[in-house]
Amino acid sequence: MMNKPLRPGNSAAIEELRALLGEHLSTGPSILDAHGRDQGYAEQHLPDAVVFPGSTQEVSQIVKICARHGCPVIPYGTGTSLEGQVIPVSGGISLDLSRMNRVIDIHEKDLDAVVQPGVTRTQLNDALRSSGLMFTVDPGADASMGGMASTRASGTNTVRYGTIRENILALEVVLPDGEIIRTGSRARKSASGYDLTHLFIGSEGTLGIITELTVRLHGLPESILAATCAFPTISAAVDTVIMAIQCGLPMARIELLDEVQMRGMNLLHSDLGLQETPYLFLEFHGSETGVKEQVETFREIADGFEATDFQFAARMEDRNRLWAARHQAYFAAKALRPGASGLVTDCCVPISELARCIHRTKQAIGISGLVAPLTGHVGDGNFHLVILVDPDDAADLRAAQDLAGTINRIALSLGGTVTGEHGVGTGKRKYMEAEHGAAYALMQRLKAAIDPDGIMNPGKMV
Amino acid sequence: MMNKPLRPGNSAAIEELRALLGEHLSTGPSILDAHGRDQGYAEQHLPDAVVFPGSTQEVSQIVKICARHGCPVIPYGTGTSLEGQVIPVSGGISLDLSRMNRVIDIHEKDLDAVVQPGVTRTQLNDALRSSGLMFTVDPGADASMGGMASTRASGTNTVRYGTIRENILALEVVLPDGEIIRTGSRARKSASGYDLTHLFIGSEGTLGIITELTVRLHGLPESILAATCAFPTISAAVDTVIMAIQCGLPMARIELLDEVQMRGMNLLHSDLGLQETPYLFLEFHGSETGVKEQVETFREIADGFEATDFQFAARMEDRNRLWAARHQAYFAAKALRPGASGLVTDCCVPISELARCIHRTKQAIGISGLVAPLTGHVGDGNFHLVILVDPDDAADLRAAQDLAGTINRIALSLGGTVTGEHGVGTGKRKYMEAEHGAAYALMQRLKAAIDPDGIMNPGKMV
Repeated sequence: MMNKPLRPGNSAAIEELRALLGEHLSTGPSILDAHGRDQGYAEQHLPDAVVFPGSTQEVSQIVKICARHGCPVIPYGTGTSLEGQVIPVSGGISLDLSRMNRVIDIHEKDLDAVVQPGVTRTQLNDALRSSGLMFTVDPGADASMGGMASTRASGTNTVRYGTIRENILALEVVLPDGEIIRTGSRARKSASGYDLTHLFIGSEGTLGIITELTVRLHGLPESILAATCAFPTISAAVDTVIMAIQCGLPMARIELLDEVQMRGMNLLHSDLGLQETPYLFLEFHGSETGVKEQVETFREIADGFEATDFQFAARMEDRNRLWAARHQAYFAAKALRPGASGLVTDCCVPISELARCIHRTKQAIGISGLVAPLTGHVGDGNFHLVILVDPDDAADLRAAQDLAGTINRIALSLGGTVTGEHGVGTGKRKYMEAEHGAAYALMQRLKAAIDPDGIMNPGKMV
Repeated sequence: MMNKPLRPGNSAAIEELRALLGEHLSTGPSILDAHGRDQGYAEQHLPDAVVFPGSTQEVSQIVKICARHGCPVIPYGTGTSLEGQVIPVSGGISLDLSRMNRVIDIHEKDLDAVVQPGVTRTQLNDALRSSGLMFTVDPGADASMGGMASTRASGTNTVRYGTIRENILALEVVLPDGEIIRTGSRARKSASGYDLTHLFIGSEGTLGIITELTVRLHGLPESILAATCAFPTISAAVDTVIMAIQCGLPMARIELLDEVQMRGMNLLHSDLGLQETPYLFLEFHGSETGVKEQVETFREIADGFEATDFQFAARMEDRNRLWAARHQAYFAAKALRPGASGLVTDCCVPISELARCIHRTKQAIGISGLVAPLTGHVGDGNFHLVILVDPDDAADLRAAQDLAGTINRIALSLGGTVTGEHGVGTGKRKYMEAEHGAAYALMQRLKAAIDPDGIMNPGKMV
């Protein structure tokens, strides 16, 4: 990856930033390289420099300097985005928040915590260990809180505990002119003023930089039971989930894995002893009797849809083994085509349309001739394909991208969205107009109102 | 209430609107009078005309006409706002959405419904009767869906089911230039684009007019049990609630009534036979065994805080009697001072600060010499005073307003908000800067970007 010639404004900004930050500014090649890519498929672009602020005040000073010089600022958490969100497509400063990684406060009575944006989800849960509380949003990566907020992340617990959208009470944000604002409060609800908190959640660093978050916590359940069961068809699995939700069953996790994904799982985890047919992986949270009751009700419903091979895991190590296998789905998928890498899709539809969406998706996979195992947060109507591609074969990659495009159009035609949890970045920008229609122009007006010079993460989302 | 002379622009707009709408435009004195007030304390101001559109297209045409003439547009639902939200403070057109009252679709598998903004909450629940589903947001009034969305309403079920903020998936909105946009989709989650849905929720008609809503529904619980119990002090009641929440007890309702409110309740409902000491009114939802277990756990916790006088109501008529009494709290309060009317406060603080906030509030009431019973959605940290005032005594009203101001400042000093669920309107505008600091200026920038001519509900919120 060649670097473009440095814009004079950027160069002047870097000089000022170096004076401010000293060793906390880097232009070392390996640092630039790491901040020029993410975990997805977008092309690498190097930042002109990487800064590592230690405080909100420092973020504000950095942004003020960059604003004065029209130098782009790209917030960076753990670099685990999948749609190019952290990539400096037109150069500028990568603003790495990893030094701002302090858990500031845990309020046990209020079930909330105040954290800096560089705190990761496992770090927060480690800090909560003695409190009996947990932070529930769990994307595949050990992402940072600021990054998860910025891409409106979710994960396997969403059906019960919500996405990050429902788990943030308040933010501190540095605006594109360097001003520091606070949105929301620790009060559980408020009818006061425009909902700026939700405006910044999911805005991918294009409106400002999140420098502090107040997040909701949940009590650790008294009892947890994990389970798996097999279904003859994906429709049977989906119908089981729909009925369980309609019955008000408060399942904590309901994950779908299709027969192709299960073949990969068996290659990676031969000890699980599961069949190569669609499976649900489930978890039930509650009191001891509550969990038992949930499982019984679920089993009755699933029996009605010809489920087989029920297996339960109550002990923590067995549960962890099961969920570790689920969380490694990406690597299991890759085991199906050694040497391949995976292009991941992320559409989400109303759950009543999920079976139809998956059916059409599978027809499209068949036509493409590609291998693309499927996993789904089925309670939310969200599913991923890992389309396996040979990274050195341009035709293969193009076919995968065509398939992804087909699937995104199917999701939109069924009243869904092209991204349930991975975000827009550069990768999904081309679908924004189709998904949002005239509302997309309003988004662009908001961007122009908040960041008139367009220095915040340019080239993303809007 | 005298009407001001008609602005020429408004007059021209009304002529065009009359040609468009015929009998669905009114300038009749009683219609103007009804659309010039709400249920709160703000001064009456008459609209120049009231329009009753029948469709989104008609709303768009009306707004285009008004925009061309710079004529204010004030959306109107059921007129049950408490902070002057529907009052045309500078004249213009009151846009009454009561004809747009169709439940368009109920998606039982997806647990959502699509409704027009004039549908009221009881109307939707009536339409859901055969589906086994319910819409849970329940402010005191039988408000319209558009109105509840616009003021970010909540109610007694929030602790379990969330405010309206968590119960709206998508909106259709007519912007201040008449353009129609759709925000969100029926997919349960999305990481695509700025969260316009939440930007319009709580914006009190200052950014556009909500013309359709997709709302979340919840399954009717298999079993419901209501309960009441008495506490020696408010702190004991609050501590009980905090511990119950920490234990993960999924209570559906937890309402606090103080000893003054209980005295009013006994005046109005002598048959309830309750003591004049702080009470919690509760409701548990779940399976039959789940509810039993919840009640047992709750009772154990409450016993630890010296609760007495447990009473339970499982039969629907007994539950309804209890909750009818709770919902009539306002009238019970007024029974304490016959002839008085009530000025209602609405602050909300982190629950760990609630006992302290109430303690300081009671000190302030004592100093004021006023009678002000207290009810609280204690699980959310939100409580209301009904400050009883003689409507014909200006000094009395001023003292009540001073007391309300003191309480709002107490809430802000404890990290809370001046409004948990009633909104800002004209009544709480003066607190916005104190509550939001520099973020208030950003709200004003957003208002200017979306409604540059300021025709949407001018004089409210921003």
